[in-house]
Amino acid sequence: MTPHQHLRILLERRVPGYSLEADFYHAQSILDIELKAVFEREWVLAGSSSEIPESGDYLTTMIGQTGIIVVHTEDGTLRAFQNSCRHRGSVICLESKGHANKLVCPYHQWTYALDGELLHAAEMPKNFDRDQYSLIAVNIELMAGMIYVCLANDPPDFSGFRREVEPYIAPHQPARCKVAFETSEIENANWKLVVENNRECYHCAGSHPELTYSLTAFAMPDDPRADTFFSELMPRKAKDWDKLGLPHVAVPGGQEFRCIRLPFINDALSMTLDGSLACRKLLGDFEDPDLGSVRMFRVPNNWNHFSSDYVLHATVNPISPDKTLLTTKWLVHEDAVEGWDYDVEHLTAVWKATNRQDATLAQNNHKGTRAAGYRTGPYAESEFMLVDFTNWYAAKMASYLTQQETSQIHLTSVSS
Amino acid sequence: MTPHQHLRILLERRVPGYSLEADFYHAQSILDIELKAVFEREWVLAGSSSEIPESGDYLTTMIGQTGIIVVHTEDGTLRAFQNSCRHRGSVICLESKGHANKLVCPYHQWTYALDGELLHAAEMPKNFDRDQYSLIAVNIELMAGMIYVCLANDPPDFSGFRREVEPYIAPHQPARCKVAFETSEIENANWKLVVENNRECYHCAGSHPELTYSLTAFAMPDDPRADTFFSELMPRKAKDWDKLGLPHVAVPGGQEFRCIRLPFINDALSMTLDGSLACRKLLGDFEDPDLGSVRMFRVPNNWNHFSSDYVLHATVNPISPDKTLLTTKWLVHEDAVEGWDYDVEHLTAVWKATNRQDATLAQNNHKGTRAAGYRTGPYAESEFMLVDFTNWYAAKMASYLTQQETSQIHLTSVSS
Amino acid sequence: MTPHQHLRILLERRVPGYSLEADFYHAQSILDIELKAVFEREWVLAGSSSEIPESGDYLTTMIGQTGIIVVHTEDGTLRAFQNSCRHRGSVICLESKGHANKLVCPYHQWTYALDGELLHAAEMPKNFDRDQYSLIAVNIELMAGMIYVCLANDPPDFSGFRREVEPYIAPHQPARCKVAFETSEIENANWKLVVENNRECYHCAGSHPELTYSLTAFAMPDDPRADTFFSELMPRKAKDWDKLGLPHVAVPGGQEFRCIRLPFINDALSMTLDGSLACRKLLGDFEDPDLGSVRMFRVPNNWNHFSSDYVLHATVNPISPDKTLLTTKWLVHEDAVEGWDYDVEHLTAVWKATNRQDATLAQNNHKGTRAAGYRTGPYAESEFMLVDFTNWYAAKMASYLTQQETSQIHLTSVSS
Repeated sequence: MTPHQHLRILLERRVPGYSLEADFYHAQSILDIELKAVFEREWVLAGSSSEIPESGDYLTTMIGQTGIIVVHTEDGTLRAFQNSCRHRGSVICLESKGHANKLVCPYHQWTYALDGELLHAAEMPKNFDRDQYSLIAVNIELMAGMIYVCLANDPPDFSGFRREVEPYIAPHQPARCKVAFETSEIENANWKLVVENNRECYHCAGSHPELTYSLTAFAMPDDPRADTFFSELMPRKAKDWDKLGLPHVAVPGGQEFRCIRLPFINDALSMTLDGSLACRKLLGDFEDPDLGSVRMFRVPNNWNHFSSDYVLHATVNPISPDKTLLTTKWLVHEDAVEGWDYDVEHLTAVWKATNRQDATLAQNNHKGTRAAGYRTGPYAESEFMLVDFTNWYAAKMASYLTQQETSQIHLTSVSS
Repeated sequence: MTPHQHLRILLERRVPGYSLEADFYHAQSILDIELKAVFEREWVLAGSSSEIPESGDYLTTMIGQTGIIVVHTEDGTLRAFQNSCRHRGSVICLESKGHANKLVCPYHQWTYALDGELLHAAEMPKNFDRDQYSLIAVNIELMAGMIYVCLANDPPDFSGFRREVEPYIAPHQPARCKVAFETSEIENANWKLVVENNRECYHCAGSHPELTYSLTAFAMPDDPRADTFFSELMPRKAKDWDKLGLPHVAVPGGQEFRCIRLPFINDALSMTLDGSLACRKLLGDFEDPDLGSVRMFRVPNNWNHFSSDYVLHATVNPISPDKTLLTTKWLVHEDAVEGWDYDVEHLTAVWKATNRQDATLAQNNHKGTRAAGYRTGPYAESEFMLVDFTNWYAAKMASYLTQQETSQIHLTSVSS
Repeated sequence: MTPHQHLRILLERRVPGYSLEADFYHAQSILDIELKAVFEREWVLAGSSSEIPESGDYLTTMIGQTGIIVVHTEDGTLRAFQNSCRHRGSVICLESKGHANKLVCPYHQWTYALDGELLHAAEMPKNFDRDQYSLIAVNIELMAGMIYVCLANDPPDFSGFRREVEPYIAPHQPARCKVAFETSEIENANWKLVVENNRECYHCAGSHPELTYSLTAFAMPDDPRADTFFSELMPRKAKDWDKLGLPHVAVPGGQEFRCIRLPFINDALSMTLDGSLACRKLLGDFEDPDLGSVRMFRVPNNWNHFSSDYVLHATVNPISPDKTLLTTKWLVHEDAVEGWDYDVEHLTAVWKATNRQDATLAQNNHKGTRAAGYRTGPYAESEFMLVDFTNWYAAKMASYLTQQETSQIHLTSVSS
């Protein structure tokens, strides 16, 4: 049985609304396909434009095992490239952030312009055609300062996402932010379990005392579990936000993205231990600190929170079937002064604790699905976003298989 | 070639009486089959009833990658379950030992009774049928306080083992013991090399000065290597034990288990550095400390020693083809007082040293079998238990392959 | 697709003069074949005769996962064996160097003579035929004190290599050296990237300030990049060496080996930080310290430098597709006195720094070739030795595949 046949069988017997079979979480052959079917085809958050404000500034990130460079070019646009020299493949930019007038490979000093063109390669034969050896370009989209990149030759449509989501994000002006803190953590769990963990708050009451001080466990304004307090709060805040021109109702993102503004509880103004602001300098041009937060997710691997005072970006990247890198960034207003406007400990305490708790949960989830008797289990009602995620994922994987089979058949008919 | 075909070829060309071919020790595909053919089908020692004396007490262990919970239920019986929540598979009991009135999954608080029944799951849809989501039960047998569990739907017969072995173990009353010390060590060797190492004392003289102070290197009372001292000692002690009603001759365990009582040498009373008792409070109702030891082994992965004053349990569990977890427990009388009746250092010194020495031997054995020129070699006469073990193992693996092929054929005829 | 079919496809679409496709650097299945097709068939440097000067002295090394013992026998010859006991396969010699009158397996004390004959095995049955259980011999060749071993049944010709290279090496008298220092480093890079890194100095100017103080970046006396200084220096030194009877022109080693003597630059006498001698006691019978260095390489994994005062040996051994062991030895005259004739720090500083820099380069090269968009790139003119190496490697792999297929066909016709 080939890896594709194996995956096809698993996809065909999958029951929507139930967790995935164990092989989805543990098989290297499935991760190998996911890298091609999901990670090399989707829009992935690479960072914020505010991280590379000047011409020559660059940042690097990973999509699966593929290094990405995003660079601020001389004409002010951002461009993205694969971080692999066209000579013998060395990584070119070694740091997560930096500044360079040219991109010079540290191995043999092949030198590229910021637009990816190969400018210089020593000791090459006469007939060497430099034009054939530009850096491999990567698709890039900028949405209110958030940089999305996509490795596909034919990337999926981005415009619907932008149209729906940008109005929620733009007032927070992420392009005028700076990264105040950043963490990279490796969790011993499959990347999908890390995403699934993030897509439901069914576990919040039992695990996240810090987070649930400000955040409601439920994800929709009309959740039947809402208490009197929330039922009174929601329409009042909605009216305030309408007045401020801040959209708040859930966007129609289908299975691919989600965006909604919800109020905090406990009179909290921000996701901090006591609900007080994390940063006195508010984002953008805000004057009202009581904006709840915009919660935004997009497949395959990115979630975000935007409150009046800070932005939280999180992305996951698979390292192996049982190891996942979680990168988290806390952004505040670019003019906010550390120690005066914000304190890093106060800013990061809730999500540091939440990440730590989630890592434990995901790891125990991962471990338990290795039991011989593990069977897929039914999602709870409040796990509706996991139903969406697994359905989206399964469709994406199935469509990849079909495409591969079709191209095989095509090749066969050409050659016969 | 499929993994099954590969294994079939290896099994067919195996020469009984010789060590196994290298792939048996190094191939991941063979370990994958072993987990199903051996570990998920055999009785495995999970612990001692004395470790969970009260209702609500539980212990956890692993069979391969499958977590097991053994719990003392309200009606006094012990029950075993797979340690994997029926919701999304999380590990339920995170500690190696604990106490709980209900088994509550730490992820979403699905709550199970001690008998495995699902009592509570929040936020599930109306048509959710709790009765379908009890914990997966695991077969359990209790023999003189030793808890054996088996993952098979149709577990192998346990009664013959119990009938033969219980009379040897029962007088030591392991159920009235407590764990005085416990170690978990990872050896960089295949699990079968760790077992093979344990199944012969051909290496003892060269490697185990501490152990051979009390233990004879040979395993049968009529071993031709026995010296005058032992030839005189054996019948004398046999007569003593007959008087005390303690059985001692080797049981007819075939290739599956072994049980025999043999005297210590050097006038030793216990497996300690100087042969003195490890614990002044004798086990059970013993008054005579000079009982030698009952040596007991059962396939696939468990060996034990029972002397007048302590019990030693050891089990191995494969982590990967080249990593094996060895768990060792030292048990003494439940009323023995540390510091007065026994000293942990004195109690554990011999087997700690022996384990350390054996780990080195098994690791070097493992490493050497990776040589391109490694060929299976002949077992010595004193390695007769390795002949048994490898024959048993090969038969078990072959029978699994045959069963799988038969069920494939069956499926084919059904579908055609 | 089988691993052989996969490799065949990769070899068939390979373009000579370009770096290898990513699978060559990352696939376990390809490393598995390389171990058989390359490492178990080629001559590999095991050490120096000066490391085992007395009867009973031995050294050990690894070829892939196969341990090798080289022993100085009673009749003065050196012999080599696989380091795996014929009983159950344990490693016999555990240390990298030692002395023994007999080779005794630490597991069950099977005892072998220095010529590999099994002298003693306790407790074996009557019909046990010791003569069938000698250690597995390994081919061995000694060239001017350098010990080469080969695991093949039918090793490739060694005489051409010896004929061409020995005259360059012999005057340095490596047999009268001692190992002054030795390092073992694990690089997170495929072994071929470590070799490729060594086979070109295109990267030297950008990365090796210490090395390029004495060594020219180019590898041939008529390199067009040579400056006036070198163009004047080369013929002058050539004349000196001719007078001393020291050969210097490049030998016709084809793709398999390379040997040449080139002068140092900057008036350096040795590869040290300031070009001064690393050891005041010159090698062999040299009186003139200004001998430049003999640079010698042989496939698959060995490079060397011989200057007037020290010898550098380096070998690489694959541990996994992404891990490679680099062993480096610095040898000086056997009568040189540490602290008087040489200082270890001064002796080793250049190559320690160079190894460290090369490890970083190879690791970043390895990482970058995992990018989805990595494509094979063209070698520069100064990378002509990489063209040779990859051509040699590809031919070796292809010839192995053909041989395997032929023997399959042969087997088929026999059985049909």
